[in-house]
Amino acid sequence: MLTVALPKGSLLTDSIRLLQSVGLDFSAFLDSSNRQLQILDPTGTARALLVRTHDVPVYVEYGQAQLGVAGYDVLREKQPRVAQVLDLGFGKCRLSVAVKESSPYRRSLDLPAHGRVASKFVHCAREYFQRLDLPVEIVPLSGSVELGPITGMSEAIVDLVSTGRTLKENGLIEMEVLFESSARLIAHPISYRLNTDGICDRIAAIREMTTTAV
Amino acid sequence: MLTVALPKGSLLTDSIRLLQSVGLDFSAFLDSSNRQLQILDPTGTARALLVRTHDVPVYVEYGQAQLGVAGYDVLREKQPRVAQVLDLGFGKCRLSVAVKESSPYRRSLDLPAHGRVASKFVHCAREYFQRLDLPVEIVPLSGSVELGPITGMSEAIVDLVSTGRTLKENGLIEMEVLFESSARLIAHPISYRLNTDGICDRIAAIREMTTTAV
Repeated sequence: MLTVALPKGSLLTDSIRLLQSVGLDFSAFLDSSNRQLQILDPTGTARALLVRTHDVPVYVEYGQAQLGVAGYDVLREKQPRVAQVLDLGFGKCRLSVAVKESSPYRRSLDLPAHGRVASKFVHCAREYFQRLDLPVEIVPLSGSVELGPITGMSEAIVDLVSTGRTLKENGLIEMEVLFESSARLIAHPISYRLNTDGICDRIAAIREMTTTAV
Repeated sequence: MLTVALPKGSLLTDSIRLLQSVGLDFSAFLDSSNRQLQILDPTGTARALLVRTHDVPVYVEYGQAQLGVAGYDVLREKQPRVAQVLDLGFGKCRLSVAVKESSPYRRSLDLPAHGRVASKFVHCAREYFQRLDLPVEIVPLSGSVELGPITGMSEAIVDLVSTGRTLKENGLIEMEVLFESSARLIAHPISYRLNTDGICDRIAAIREMTTTAV
């Protein structure tokens, strides 16, 4: 049976709407009283798993789901062995370097060598500063990264920015963009190649519904 | 100024009550309308940071907070360079191996070699199975680990158990305990040694209020 891994949080509603448009109804996950992590489409032909956004690529990589929706930011950070098949166009944001507005820094290269950069995106941040040939210490945080510069623990942060409201509220400004992100449809590579459970038809239908292909 | 890092989530209320009993009032964090991540004690002599449970040791290790409250499970998993100064006695739980009740496994050593074990506690799980000389593949998940065996992705999980309700609801049973956990008071090693901001007196007062020392 076709199984789709769906991410909890901000991408969920758009993901479910898109799948509904191609005949897969997992809207039961949008019911606030729902406690199930696994549901069947009413037609009984497909199943969905509701998992943390960082876990979607894990379920798809291990083949427990043939399809999944994940942010490009998560895919860049975790580098899972999955096929990225479509840019779904929603969930747009960017991974950016930000500093305190009161700081003297306006470009990444202004940051002091061996300074500290707090981030949830440790891999992406490390890769970025290595490419700039700027040695910094990445401080791994799991949330509220904006506290890094506020408390003086780090000179800068690397974090996702969508509206910019959180930065503004915390007196931070965006300096440079590492990359733009959006939701991607991912597939288990072998299922994709072998067209298991007719996933290629599903992907084609979803492609029709979206505008931008990767 | 003395800064204390407090964990969001299940340890917060007990942490705040304990600090109140030694004259540090951070109860503003318990107000559901509070959005601040940083507050002062009403006497203006101490500050608290409200951060994710996994980030408490980071703030303490980097010296942005001299004291913090963290679960022993987090300390075992992340191995931060902090001083563990007190067992606070609350937040009791255990890190355990669990499997589907319908599985043939009843001890960790029954698990098949090269089987899969899903966990948020990748480091602890790896260390445990290495000690057993049982080669398994650890599947890193960030939440809802119980889905691992349910979907067939893993034979077992290593996860925190407190009441056992989540396991039961998902048809899983606890096989073996890796270790017992509870909330710990941690300190920045240098601040502790130099008694910065009189933290040794604070620790002594907190010790008086708790029963078990580490």
